[in-house]
Amino acid sequence: MVDAGVRYLFEPGSVAVVGATNNQSKPGHTIVGNLLKYGFEGSVYPINRTGHSVLGREGYRSIAEIPNEVDLAVLLSAPFETVDLIEECARKKVKAVVICSGGFAEVDDEGRELERRIIDIARETGMRILGPNINGPINTSNNLLLSMAPLMEPKRGNLAFISQTGQFMVWVTEWLQTAFGLGVSKAIDLGNKCDVDEIEVLEYLEQDPATEVIAIHIEALKDGRRLMEAASRIGRRKPVIVLKTGRSQDGARAALSHSGSLAGRDEVTDAALRQAGVIRAQDFDEFLDFAKAFSRLSIPRGNRVGVVTSTGGGGIMALDACERCGLEVATFSAETIERMEGLYPGRERVSKLVDLGPAMGKRDINELYGSALDAMVSDDGIDGIVMMIIVVVTENPTNPDPDILMDLVRRGRKPIIACTTGRQDWVTEYSRTLEAKGVPTYPSPERAVRALAALRRYGSWLEETNGG
Amino acid sequence: MVDAGVRYLFEPGSVAVVGATNNQSKPGHTIVGNLLKYGFEGSVYPINRTGHSVLGREGYRSIAEIPNEVDLAVLLSAPFETVDLIEECARKKVKAVVICSGGFAEVDDEGRELERRIIDIARETGMRILGPNINGPINTSNNLLLSMAPLMEPKRGNLAFISQTGQFMVWVTEWLQTAFGLGVSKAIDLGNKCDVDEIEVLEYLEQDPATEVIAIHIEALKDGRRLMEAASRIGRRKPVIVLKTGRSQDGARAALSHSGSLAGRDEVTDAALRQAGVIRAQDFDEFLDFAKAFSRLSIPRGNRVGVVTSTGGGGIMALDACERCGLEVATFSAETIERMEGLYPGRERVSKLVDLGPAMGKRDINELYGSALDAMVSDDGIDGIVMMIIVVVTENPTNPDPDILMDLVRRGRKPIIACTTGRQDWVTEYSRTLEAKGVPTYPSPERAVRALAALRRYGSWLEETNGG
Repeated sequence: MVDAGVRYLFEPGSVAVVGATNNQSKPGHTIVGNLLKYGFEGSVYPINRTGHSVLGREGYRSIAEIPNEVDLAVLLSAPFETVDLIEECARKKVKAVVICSGGFAEVDDEGRELERRIIDIARETGMRILGPNINGPINTSNNLLLSMAPLMEPKRGNLAFISQTGQFMVWVTEWLQTAFGLGVSKAIDLGNKCDVDEIEVLEYLEQDPATEVIAIHIEALKDGRRLMEAASRIGRRKPVIVLKTGRSQDGARAALSHSGSLAGRDEVTDAALRQAGVIRAQDFDEFLDFAKAFSRLSIPRGNRVGVVTSTGGGGIMALDACERCGLEVATFSAETIERMEGLYPGRERVSKLVDLGPAMGKRDINELYGSALDAMVSDDGIDGIVMMIIVVVTENPTNPDPDILMDLVRRGRKPIIACTTGRQDWVTEYSRTLEAKGVPTYPSPERAVRALAALRRYGSWLEETNGG
Repeated sequence: MVDAGVRYLFEPGSVAVVGATNNQSKPGHTIVGNLLKYGFEGSVYPINRTGHSVLGREGYRSIAEIPNEVDLAVLLSAPFETVDLIEECARKKVKAVVICSGGFAEVDDEGRELERRIIDIARETGMRILGPNINGPINTSNNLLLSMAPLMEPKRGNLAFISQTGQFMVWVTEWLQTAFGLGVSKAIDLGNKCDVDEIEVLEYLEQDPATEVIAIHIEALKDGRRLMEAASRIGRRKPVIVLKTGRSQDGARAALSHSGSLAGRDEVTDAALRQAGVIRAQDFDEFLDFAKAFSRLSIPRGNRVGVVTSTGGGGIMALDACERCGLEVATFSAETIERMEGLYPGRERVSKLVDLGPAMGKRDINELYGSALDAMVSDDGIDGIVMMIIVVVTENPTNPDPDILMDLVRRGRKPIIACTTGRQDWVTEYSRTLEAKGVPTYPSPERAVRALAALRRYGSWLEETNGG
């Protein structure tokens, strides 16, 4: 069961912003701006000392003054004022509070004491607290965009992103959207986690119909065992990708002063994550690469990979990467080999790499990629396909038509992942078309293969878990 | 001593293109087009059956007909015609020949036999052969742009790029230029290496004044020992970055049919490369990342790294990456700590991560980054700096001014590497400015740290080699 208060963090009917102002350089202006600009589907109540209106919305001097119910309050106040405000929220029967301000447990003993008092009020009243030391949650379903930084127009997607911290959450969300073409369903940063933690957020996302994949950045686990239990249960329905940082001694120490919590031993974490079926990203690049793959592709039924390329050099890198990532380079069926050889008059034989390079320019590009993919899609010995495309622009069409590729993808129901490269502007444009059709693209063969391998590791875990 | 014939591959006074045509869809048109469009500083002689002119240049029916000396001949002919043409070139006393056509040792026994006959002619006459099965060399100093694919306007740089194969060479060169902002001094693909191999090309690049860094992609070593000897000698003056593929069993087998040569055991290669001071890239991403770092940065004098960031989350990733890559997170001097603490009123203490996050928006961004960098640049306990910047665009300047950063970089004479992230368009624009000032940028903290670690590994090797 998802706690009602946690649900109000994402789905409030009304939001009070304490510290709302018309001073454009202040976060109390930006938050109201983000809510209004992108049409939050609920009421917005600016609160400030004089009760003046902000961006045309009627203002109030206190939460108590608001004539209607308030589901969610956002606090931008100085730490020493926060306890009083939380008490006021409790009296108003506010369902949930987001404390954006920093200066609590991450800073000193005084801050820790303030957090303890806030937690006490939450426990007594049942009011839920997110933060402190955060940016605020984003829900693209109702345009709840609680960000202290000005946001770009959000893009909806099936990926939920949980971040330890606020700056990271905002830039990753915008980097995902602009550089990876990925929208989010929800994005949330946890900060000091004085009350609501990653587990309750995961439980909310588990039942959120807009969320199909969950990516979570954690610096420190408060309760590893509970997290693994939750992740393992949720993982059966929705893949959970984790970037656990603070792995090194120095990193762990910095995490302690950054978000006020202690990181455990990394090997222990690693084993526990693996057992819980969590997809662990080794670094930030993998985190985003995996998020893209899981949000767009089906899970391969086995680990046998077929590689088709117009660059032999790049194809060999993909084969190398398969071995390194525990994937098997598929041995083609006799029929596939025969069909491939029709594409290569004069070549000795197709072994394990379909290199269209020598036939490029001599045959129609769609015929080449189309025939190769058609054979690979029909071959039961191939579970997933890596496709390398050098994007070129000339008068004649020299890139495979994404529509033709997509018909094959749909028919085959096996994941096809692409590496696209060439001139950056051409690559960006072509990749966008390909991704709109459901084929995620990567700038190197190794990154494409690593993402496919992560999909397969998750597939193996699912099979073991469901079989056991 | 660089062989005169090898020099003519890059610095010919005249080029004959056999197979030149006005048919725009043919490589024999594109090559002449690339030479003329970008102003090759030498004569261009189109050769074809009827001797017609191509793109306004007077044509000839054969090499023999050309009234002047020919330094370099480019052959696009079918394999079976190639031997006769090579003989004709020899009679004309052509200095070097580039055989673009494929269909030789990489295909079948007949092809291998043709290659043997070509090598015999080269040996007898001293004429040097590059290829077959290649795209052709690029020299940005004289605009010799021998490419069967239409090229974009080339950018000059201090990086020479040697590739095993042609498609790979063209797209990597253009990807480097457009996505990494890196120009090349020379780019060359080796193909089947029937005569000129990577060692002679390396020797040419060793003495080439336009080349300061060499990046080489190899699928198979013909003569590992000689290569290591050459790399080890060249490495003392110019860093040599290697991407050796065909590492896996399947990859090695594909390399055999791709470029007609056999890859050795990877662990042996790995040890030999390390001993020779070669910087080995583990994958394609590292290859380009390292090329960028080496072509822009000085070598750090030690392995102690300082990290400054406006995102604690990203900073912790950088610390984790340092440990993983064998770099030490620097312990700041008492003076540095004191200066940092001035930036953070209320923070407990600066340990090993300079996290400007909490002070952002409260102090001027240039004061923050400037003071932190100034302290780190002056601290003798820090050998290299990783700087994380979230690029934001608002009315007030919220990104550190690249000019201010650069003054510090110049004064400190220690490498500063950046991770820039945020919205892609802003990141691209800001990164370009930063790179123009000499600070290479990466999209993740781990990639920045890995590149810095590669610089340091090379530095250690240099110290050991020069000390011994």
